Amino acid sequence: MKNISILGATGSIGTQTLDVIRNSTNKINLIGITANSSVKKVIEIIDEFSPKYVAMMDKNCAKDIKDYCDANNLKIKVLGGIEGLIEIASLEEIDTVVTSVVGMIGLKPTMAAIEAGKDIALANKETLVVAGELVMNKAREKGVKILPVDSEHSAIFQSLSGYTSKDINKIILTASGGPFRGKKLEELKNVTVHEALKHPKWNMGKKISIDSATLMNKGLEVIEAHYLFDCDYDNIEVVVHPQSIIHSMVEYNDASIIAQLGSPDMRLPIQYALNYPDRVERIAKPISFYEIATLTFEKPDLHTFKCLDLAYKAGKEGGLATTILNGANEEAVALLLEEKIKFLQIAEIIEESLEYFKEEKSNELTLENIIDLDCRVRQYIRNKWC
Amino acid sequence: MKNISILGATGSIGTQTLDVIRNSTNKINLIGITANSSVKKVIEIIDEFSPKYVAMMDKNCAKDIKDYCDANNLKIKVLGGIEGLIEIASLEEIDTVVTSVVGMIGLKPTMAAIEAGKDIALANKETLVVAGELVMNKAREKGVKILPVDSEHSAIFQSLSGYTSKDINKIILTASGGPFRGKKLEELKNVTVHEALKHPKWNMGKKISIDSATLMNKGLEVIEAHYLFDCDYDNIEVVVHPQSIIHSMVEYNDASIIAQLGSPDMRLPIQYALNYPDRVERIAKPISFYEIATLTFEKPDLHTFKCLDLAYKAGKEGGLATTILNGANEEAVALLLEEKIKFLQIAEIIEESLEYFKEEKSNELTLENIIDLDCRVRQYIRNKWC
Repeated sequence: MKNISILGATGSIGTQTLDVIRNSTNKINLIGITANSSVKKVIEIIDEFSPKYVAMMDKNCAKDIKDYCDANNLKIKVLGGIEGLIEIASLEEIDTVVTSVVGMIGLKPTMAAIEAGKDIALANKETLVVAGELVMNKAREKGVKILPVDSEHSAIFQSLSGYTSKDINKIILTASGGPFRGKKLEELKNVTVHEALKHPKWNMGKKISIDSATLMNKGLEVIEAHYLFDCDYDNIEVVVHPQSIIHSMVEYNDASIIAQLGSPDMRLPIQYALNYPDRVERIAKPISFYEIATLTFEKPDLHTFKCLDLAYKAGKEGGLATTILNGANEEAVALLLEEKIKFLQIAEIIEESLEYFKEEKSNELTLENIIDLDCRVRQYIRNKWC
Repeated sequence: MKNISILGATGSIGTQTLDVIRNSTNKINLIGITANSSVKKVIEIIDEFSPKYVAMMDKNCAKDIKDYCDANNLKIKVLGGIEGLIEIASLEEIDTVVTSVVGMIGLKPTMAAIEAGKDIALANKETLVVAGELVMNKAREKGVKILPVDSEHSAIFQSLSGYTSKDINKIILTASGGPFRGKKLEELKNVTVHEALKHPKWNMGKKISIDSATLMNKGLEVIEAHYLFDCDYDNIEVVVHPQSIIHSMVEYNDASIIAQLGSPDMRLPIQYALNYPDRVERIAKPISFYEIATLTFEKPDLHTFKCLDLAYKAGKEGGLATTILNGANEEAVALLLEEKIKFLQIAEIIEESLEYFKEEKSNELTLENIIDLDCRVRQYIRNKWC
């Protein structure tokens, strides 16, 4: 029996988390949900799961939900704005918060949940990218578990099974390579948003699909792995593995490698995080090695996929460099989705932002400084490229 | 600091265990060793490692060793015969016994070691094949750890990391496929012993090399896995994986698979078993996924490699069926090495023996009955095929 809140219940991970709850034999209670503005989807969730708390980031949408609840005599507490998200992340009666909002917006509610002693099923990678040190220190202080939901970090977590960074040589993060694997710089000059959104293996939201096309997704994961598993950047290796069957690996001191494999189905790591350490009945399709036949591995092309290289560099610089990296990336991806820039400009914008804000990388690492710098990076980009 | 004995110190696994001790930074003390008749090799081990006890299965060889020790003023207790092996397996001052003798001969000393409360680094697979239930029951009763040294079982053990049979759907045992992978029955009619001994991936002793060529090695491992991990035969799947990089896998209830990978180097599982649960500095070469590039998987051909099929059948029959299977196989392999039979006759001999002794499969499962039946199976084969 576990009581949970989902931050970002209507997105890709949120929806799949609902499916895990739906198929769960040992009861997982959905107490609170949050969404941005998807009123229709939230109403469907209310009808199916009867959560006690709902927060909408958009306050007008919160009003719509409130009206729906009143009209149907539903005793649901409806909240609005970031304060609503924070309240739902730290409710007295919940054990675990699934943080599946996309982007920097997840930071404050996640910190609040940790402060309140809640375990975190972490699907929001930006949280660790922008504030890894703060988040992990707070988690250690409060004794809360950070259970990764990203398939790669879940794989590493499963492969570690109690061993720690002192026992390992390196982490091997696998990457599908995205829709442009094998392409050269020249070939990517005029790719369309539509092509960039076509991920070959995973069905995901738009932001993460673009990040997968640029390999920034892998870059963010490298930074996330650094913080989650206390591993030096030099000991995190990215291997392109197009079949997405091996979700990541750990090489131990003795050169033995432990890997986690499975279908590319996000419900598997979600289910694992929500039931940890129990291994409950499957939702995901099992894989058959007779059918798979071949798994392949390649070195990533850091020249073409410069975002991955920039992520390593920002990670190694430390301090607020990854805050700049993430803010610039979020904004550049938004501009691409609005068709205001071209695909290859994402890396250019990030590189230029890291250069422009370089004096600020060593500012004091506080939540306020992080949020402030993120904000200024975005403004800088909007001003310059719009 | 760990005190160990090695049963079969001059064989393939024994020699590699010595190499692990040689390269060990945290001290492993070699207290006792046993060998069959390799006097020269044993003297080399004495000179390098100064064990306190030596046993030679061949009593004349024991005398040679005694003479050497006397001549060189070495205070070593030298023993002979199976009693010598048993004494060295149960010495008061040791913690762990590495059972790396080949064949049924390992059974009595292993049982004696368990009786004396020693942890077992198990490299002798025949022990579990002929007397799995007796051995595992005794180990549970005495609270001793059975640490598998076979690369496949070590991989499963590492992949389980504390989970038990109730948490898993199946074990996936990988097999290199041996030197005759892809060949059809017709093509194997006239293969020579020399061809059968040429294993593509592992450098091993003669018995296990032939077993790998017939796939009986995998069959014995299936039975071993059944006893070691308390897993139904229907939940043990063999997958041919010619690169021998994934050493085996476990599929959990949730369809997540954990695998162990590494170079095909037996020192890795030996080192793991001797240092468990610590992960000490590597001896084995690490693997590079950029170099590996491709891993492939196939279904085993049970029609051509009938030994694997026979092993499953004997395993499912239970009782003393696997004792017959193992005795017949050991004797048939000996006959092949003596060039008295042809390669495909191994499976024929085993099948015929299982049929001939079928009434005895349900005899009471005692050490005496097992040893007696094994003896009669061998005589039957010697009489009929020599």
